[in-house]
Amino acid sequence: MSTKYKDLKQECYEANMALNALGLVIYTFGNVSAVDRGNSVFAIKPSGVPYDILKPEDIVVLDFDNMVVEGKLRPSSDTKTHAYLYKNWGDIGGIAHTHATYSVAWAQAQQDIPIFGTTHADHLTSDIPCASPMHDDLIQGDYEHNTGIQILDCFNDKGLSYKDVEMVLIGNHGPFSWGENAAKAVYNSKVLETVAQMATLTLQINPNAPRLKASLIKKHYERKHGKNAYYGQ
Amino acid sequence: MSTKYKDLKQECYEANMALNALGLVIYTFGNVSAVDRGNSVFAIKPSGVPYDILKPEDIVVLDFDNMVVEGKLRPSSDTKTHAYLYKNWGDIGGIAHTHATYSVAWAQAQQDIPIFGTTHADHLTSDIPCASPMHDDLIQGDYEHNTGIQILDCFNDKGLSYKDVEMVLIGNHGPFSWGENAAKAVYNSKVLETVAQMATLTLQINPNAPRLKASLIKKHYERKHGKNAYYGQ
Amino acid sequence: MSTKYKDLKQECYEANMALNALGLVIYTFGNVSAVDRGNSVFAIKPSGVPYDILKPEDIVVLDFDNMVVEGKLRPSSDTKTHAYLYKNWGDIGGIAHTHATYSVAWAQAQQDIPIFGTTHADHLTSDIPCASPMHDDLIQGDYEHNTGIQILDCFNDKGLSYKDVEMVLIGNHGPFSWGENAAKAVYNSKVLETVAQMATLTLQINPNAPRLKASLIKKHYERKHGKNAYYGQ
Amino acid sequence: MSTKYKDLKQECYEANMALNALGLVIYTFGNVSAVDRGNSVFAIKPSGVPYDILKPEDIVVLDFDNMVVEGKLRPSSDTKTHAYLYKNWGDIGGIAHTHATYSVAWAQAQQDIPIFGTTHADHLTSDIPCASPMHDDLIQGDYEHNTGIQILDCFNDKGLSYKDVEMVLIGNHGPFSWGENAAKAVYNSKVLETVAQMATLTLQINPNAPRLKASLIKKHYERKHGKNAYYGQ
Repeated sequence: MSTKYKDLKQECYEANMALNALGLVIYTFGNVSAVDRGNSVFAIKPSGVPYDILKPEDIVVLDFDNMVVEGKLRPSSDTKTHAYLYKNWGDIGGIAHTHATYSVAWAQAQQDIPIFGTTHADHLTSDIPCASPMHDDLIQGDYEHNTGIQILDCFNDKGLSYKDVEMVLIGNHGPFSWGENAAKAVYNSKVLETVAQMATLTLQINPNAPRLKASLIKKHYERKHGKNAYYGQ
Repeated sequence: MSTKYKDLKQECYEANMALNALGLVIYTFGNVSAVDRGNSVFAIKPSGVPYDILKPEDIVVLDFDNMVVEGKLRPSSDTKTHAYLYKNWGDIGGIAHTHATYSVAWAQAQQDIPIFGTTHADHLTSDIPCASPMHDDLIQGDYEHNTGIQILDCFNDKGLSYKDVEMVLIGNHGPFSWGENAAKAVYNSKVLETVAQMATLTLQINPNAPRLKASLIKKHYERKHGKNAYYGQ
Repeated sequence: MSTKYKDLKQECYEANMALNALGLVIYTFGNVSAVDRGNSVFAIKPSGVPYDILKPEDIVVLDFDNMVVEGKLRPSSDTKTHAYLYKNWGDIGGIAHTHATYSVAWAQAQQDIPIFGTTHADHLTSDIPCASPMHDDLIQGDYEHNTGIQILDCFNDKGLSYKDVEMVLIGNHGPFSWGENAAKAVYNSKVLETVAQMATLTLQINPNAPRLKASLIKKHYERKHGKNAYYGQ
Repeated sequence: MSTKYKDLKQECYEANMALNALGLVIYTFGNVSAVDRGNSVFAIKPSGVPYDILKPEDIVVLDFDNMVVEGKLRPSSDTKTHAYLYKNWGDIGGIAHTHATYSVAWAQAQQDIPIFGTTHADHLTSDIPCASPMHDDLIQGDYEHNTGIQILDCFNDKGLSYKDVEMVLIGNHGPFSWGENAAKAVYNSKVLETVAQMATLTLQINPNAPRLKASLIKKHYERKHGKNAYYGQ
């Protein structure tokens, strides 16, 4: 293994293994990538390799136009989505994609996850957006690349910033999340799955459960992001 | 143990143990078989033996007319269903049967599992069929043999191919799945259970959730089965 | 430890530990007993002792009138219910009581668990009975003794045999199960919890799911209990 | 580490680790404290430290006015809520706060958990109270301190004693529980989560499930708290 991308591959490998350890994936139903902004490349899980035999040297390195820079295996079939996000969102360091159960259920229900409580508000202060299913002409085109477009369109339409909202559901598909590095992207996948389960149960107990009121949303935003941020349990 | 079927029994044993490790069975609520097409025999779990004491040499070998070829223990009470499928579907290499919770719930609800998303579409592009409960005259006859007939009738009625759709629910009973070998049959059992749970939750969140649209179904079918197949996460 | 009841205490100890290993109890929310018909005594878990520190010599031995025969600790507060069942049902060898989640939920819902499928029918061919909450005069009396009366009244009212139906829900409380020995009683606790979960999900998917039809109930009863019984997966 | 608070920190550390082992928290979503009444101080988890690297010496000791007495790390952001409860409720020895799934779901549904059965009644004989979301002026003030006020207001409004009812849900947020020591507070967190799950399922099976009748509530209260208390499974 070349030494140049050794650390990047290791970061990517560890984040993929964490996805598995956190119960967010079975078989090969997910992938994590990590970016090296200095060299404008990212490392991602190879396609179809189960987690129990994955090794750091299996990780594939590509540039933002999806050209393989290092690695003998085929990169994940979701690679173009990752590349598109890295290219357009200059401040993210890692991306995770899973088919975790509750996140997928909301994506299949094609509904934003309402902000019902402080577990949600401690991480983001809007509903978790669900991107509409892709238009037929985009599906027939470069599908995974266009999934990236679909995510950006969703954020534009809803007026969201990827820096405030580090997760999205793709209608009919499942979740993508991101963060300052690959480990943070995996963390956000786990938070999303947890919040998705809590919201499902909340609506089962009280179908008319109200969204969190504006004053609490504001308080939690400032507790974490404000000038005098102090949040941490 | 004769050497002739040693590998077949080992394949069967490992697949049965995987069923247990994947959380798809408790006690003896399931069984997996593996076929040897050259010798027209298949190996299956013995009846009533718990997984924690099951050994490769306990596996029973039978021909497609249910005559025991090798093995001292009684074969699984579901053996005739396996034999019927092997006899009629020349291209399958392994079969798995479980009483996994969500799969059984859909079978008891007597409903096909609608195709709600890409997790489902990555594996099959129709709803997962639920065979109607057996007619009374068949129940009173050779029940397990007739379960095989019931499965084939279901596929004929719905115009499905066992090569495209590698799983079925038996109304009021539970799931059968198959594949090119025993391990793939177990894999399909796990996929079915996962998709069944996702569909249950999807309907709880949105009782009017739409089925996946035709263009996405076609895309996912071609991504996996088309001339330029490239799928793999 | 006296040698006379050593085996009985060991059987009781192992069955209590199995309850814990099967995920049917947290803390001290459950207890198992084993009977010695020859000596007309039974062994039961001591009161309030957590499973992780329970030892075989902690097990308490009592006669059917609740007099302690051997043991220094106080017997489970449910002891009188066990004694009453052993005294009245001459053919049972072990009893288990848990507060397992889905079993308790049906008990709290005060509903029999409908027979929806073959997982249920392989073990019993009627609905799982839920005894009505106790009358006020019995509650104010000898509560745990009267819980035994409540169970027998339920079986008499519904025309059930404790040999065919080895489990019951006590309305507002939780499940009791029994069998030829303590291990079989624990097995029935796990089957009950599994069937309870499947029934819950079945009704969520299809609120009008039909009960298993009579011909299938009869087939499964005979497959297991008939002259030519052959059941076993 | 000073020897003065060594035992207190150890108690606090072990209780925090138990929260994690019992599956009540992910990442840093929870905290436990333990009090030393003689010295009028309490020990609490530091802010933002994950459980897998937490050490006894990381625990922070504060007085009831939130002044740090010992410890280099920042105390949990929920510290002021703990301090307020210790200051006002003189008989509690430990407090636990989690974001456990079912407890949070009921808090987000803004509903008291009805007393449906004996699992609940063995621990408390009223509904589990859910405090209304905080008034806007309190949110904009000293939020965590005011969460303590919110809890006491709830108990006053509902006429509850913290000695009888050792748990509460904060609307939109999640559960707090307490007890004679930190381990008992954690125990009550686990009981609350279990009872919350049972109640959710009970209502799914029977939306009209009745609350436990008064005679059973009284019996269970006396069985545990009465002059001749004898409860223990």
